[in-house]
Amino acid sequence: MVPHLTTALNGPLLSLEKRMLEAMPNIEHWFRTQWLEYASPFYASVDLRNSGFKLAPVDTNLFPAGFNNLNPDFLSLTVQAAMVAVEKICPEAHRLLIIPENHTRNTFYLRNVVELSKMLKAAGLDVRIGSISPEITEPTTLEAEGGHPLLLEPVIREGNRIKLKNAELGDFDSCAVLLNNDLSSGIPDILKNLEQDLIPPLHAGWSTRKKSEHFSAYNKIAAEFSTLLDIDEWLLNPYFETCEGIDFQSRTGEDCLAVKVETLLNKIKAKYEQYNVTQEPFVIVKANAGTYGMGIMSVKSPDGVRDLNRKARKKMAVGKEGLKVSEVIIQEGVYTFESIDDAVAEPVVYMMDHFVIGGFYRVHTNRGIDENLNAPGSHFVPLAFETPCGLPDCTDEPDTVPNRFYAYGVVARLALLAAAIELQENDPLNS
Amino acid sequence: MVPHLTTALNGPLLSLEKRMLEAMPNIEHWFRTQWLEYASPFYASVDLRNSGFKLAPVDTNLFPAGFNNLNPDFLSLTVQAAMVAVEKICPEAHRLLIIPENHTRNTFYLRNVVELSKMLKAAGLDVRIGSISPEITEPTTLEAEGGHPLLLEPVIREGNRIKLKNAELGDFDSCAVLLNNDLSSGIPDILKNLEQDLIPPLHAGWSTRKKSEHFSAYNKIAAEFSTLLDIDEWLLNPYFETCEGIDFQSRTGEDCLAVKVETLLNKIKAKYEQYNVTQEPFVIVKANAGTYGMGIMSVKSPDGVRDLNRKARKKMAVGKEGLKVSEVIIQEGVYTFESIDDAVAEPVVYMMDHFVIGGFYRVHTNRGIDENLNAPGSHFVPLAFETPCGLPDCTDEPDTVPNRFYAYGVVARLALLAAAIELQENDPLNS
Repeated sequence: MVPHLTTALNGPLLSLEKRMLEAMPNIEHWFRTQWLEYASPFYASVDLRNSGFKLAPVDTNLFPAGFNNLNPDFLSLTVQAAMVAVEKICPEAHRLLIIPENHTRNTFYLRNVVELSKMLKAAGLDVRIGSISPEITEPTTLEAEGGHPLLLEPVIREGNRIKLKNAELGDFDSCAVLLNNDLSSGIPDILKNLEQDLIPPLHAGWSTRKKSEHFSAYNKIAAEFSTLLDIDEWLLNPYFETCEGIDFQSRTGEDCLAVKVETLLNKIKAKYEQYNVTQEPFVIVKANAGTYGMGIMSVKSPDGVRDLNRKARKKMAVGKEGLKVSEVIIQEGVYTFESIDDAVAEPVVYMMDHFVIGGFYRVHTNRGIDENLNAPGSHFVPLAFETPCGLPDCTDEPDTVPNRFYAYGVVARLALLAAAIELQENDPLNS
Repeated sequence: MVPHLTTALNGPLLSLEKRMLEAMPNIEHWFRTQWLEYASPFYASVDLRNSGFKLAPVDTNLFPAGFNNLNPDFLSLTVQAAMVAVEKICPEAHRLLIIPENHTRNTFYLRNVVELSKMLKAAGLDVRIGSISPEITEPTTLEAEGGHPLLLEPVIREGNRIKLKNAELGDFDSCAVLLNNDLSSGIPDILKNLEQDLIPPLHAGWSTRKKSEHFSAYNKIAAEFSTLLDIDEWLLNPYFETCEGIDFQSRTGEDCLAVKVETLLNKIKAKYEQYNVTQEPFVIVKANAGTYGMGIMSVKSPDGVRDLNRKARKKMAVGKEGLKVSEVIIQEGVYTFESIDDAVAEPVVYMMDHFVIGGFYRVHTNRGIDENLNAPGSHFVPLAFETPCGLPDCTDEPDTVPNRFYAYGVVARLALLAAAIELQENDPLNS
């Protein structure tokens, strides 16, 4: 049984939360006008870090894979949001084909697909799961975590359409295709030049997306939002830099990396002094293309990237699906001050269309407060949020459960807006 | 304490429900395409009657006044739907002025205003309550049911805008005005020719609306939906007729009424025979303009409208706010077969934008299964639905709680669509 935690925070009160509560109608009005301008991604999850003095997004996933970790009590909220998403993106669609990741051995991931498919069925779509894994050559029922059966059917390409062929269930030709596969290893040929609507579009895949582009868009959003709230933008925006032309194996680009790490650490140090933060600044170095938590380093001094041993270099050199890392993002590290029974906890907020539908804590007992929690071997325990994020209690103290979650929802939506801008700017049709 | 009932049905299984469950993706697809064509009212409530063999709407209210009766567990669902409604109708609005009914002594109604205002605040609006009652001449705090304070401020007209003037709280000029006042006694001058957006529009008020226009639009919707489901339209559509030029006091129009009552009773009888229904057919005679349950008769033979005594004629002659009734609608009566501890129960479904957000049972211990439950002296007990209406369990038997409520939600949405068509057709801008 998964306990439903309220909030894991035990650090100091975030004055930022108070500011958000006071400004709530202005914040919501601002979001409404933003969404008139930008199209929300179909769905997304945002990893947040809450250091007590700072609340910031550290990763925005456009192929969220933890629907199984959400609180089932809020299923109707998700279904309603999914209805909005479907109405916007494919109102004429009867059918939806979901394409999941290829790793069919992760039963928790399979359970995520079960839950996602349940939500979209409840939103009124005829849903089937089409695999592009070479291992799935015929309709195959796998067992997802909890004993739930999941039928995967091989995707067939005919002309510029992908379909399912199934003598028993009937063929399946949908005008909309939902990707729950982040395309880390590149865009497979079978998905190229389709006449069907791909949701999200192919350029949302990690083979195209760069974290630095996301955070550049976030810079714009965070600046505007901070002006609205009259706060220091740094309180919700981590500094970052990038380095290109890196080759960890041959030690190329090490100097660029060390210089930028030093610059960032100095900037963070100045801010820490301004806010009387006594922790030691640190940065996270990771591949600029999505990595699923592979190839990530936590560094507290420029020397930390100079004297990498053979093992560490090898680890950094390769991202998800064996892709070589040649470009990195160096991002200000944000301490996690939320914990549950001495275990570090990182909130993950889930959104469907532009609505926050819930979230969970990623809890890991064996990691420090300055480490990445979404890393290989990170067998985290998911703890679903007990209340939704849309119902602050303005008569209450800021540091109560619904108010804490409201702040999480706001920052997650800022990251979602950044993703919307990023997708719009990178849309091949706009270039 | 209000118990949260699951469903009150103990009558025979509705084969209609089974049909709806099977056709669920088609139904939702059909609704999506309908909402591409028609603009949903901002909010609405629909009174349903479930006779076991038939499930039909009997009244559609565009100024719903029972938000206090909804299950608080689904507040976040309502807030999310309210966000959608606001985004569609007044995305640029910061502020919202709510104009409630004038009857300030009904503490349950006041509690409805408290809850509605809470929902819209949570959706991100700056909300204040402006009264157009002659009794409210200065800011007045009333006590709503449960001890909740409700501040009513007198509405001031300046040119073509209505505003609040308040030295303490500051003045309030909103670009959107939400009516929770059904305008039964006509459109007050203070609301005429405003440059602000009135939601719903003035022509949604009961001084303009006619039940027969609503049910004509419902005929169109029910016919199309029944074709989609391949069912007899009668299973979800009550027959109706109208009579104009009635004067109950002077007994004018009695013949027209008797003839149409007889015609309807014969049509119902034929259907009852077709479906082996053994009950006695009855019709409901009520004012064609909204009446709040006044001036309503349940009739089982044409003689029932011929030999009205003085008291009954007087009762029928006057609708809400003393308005004279000269036009009536004669509607097929639908038996209520839902009951709770021997008390008759009528479901009421609430919608915000085109989303079902919940509902409750109107339960009355002293009334029969063929009587109107929303009548004067009908001190009903509200019993909130225990589950939302959007989550049918298709693996389950039709007659389970979520599935029963799904069917309720579908029929309520059909009535909502009819209201959307009715409002579009009666829009003065379209004529």
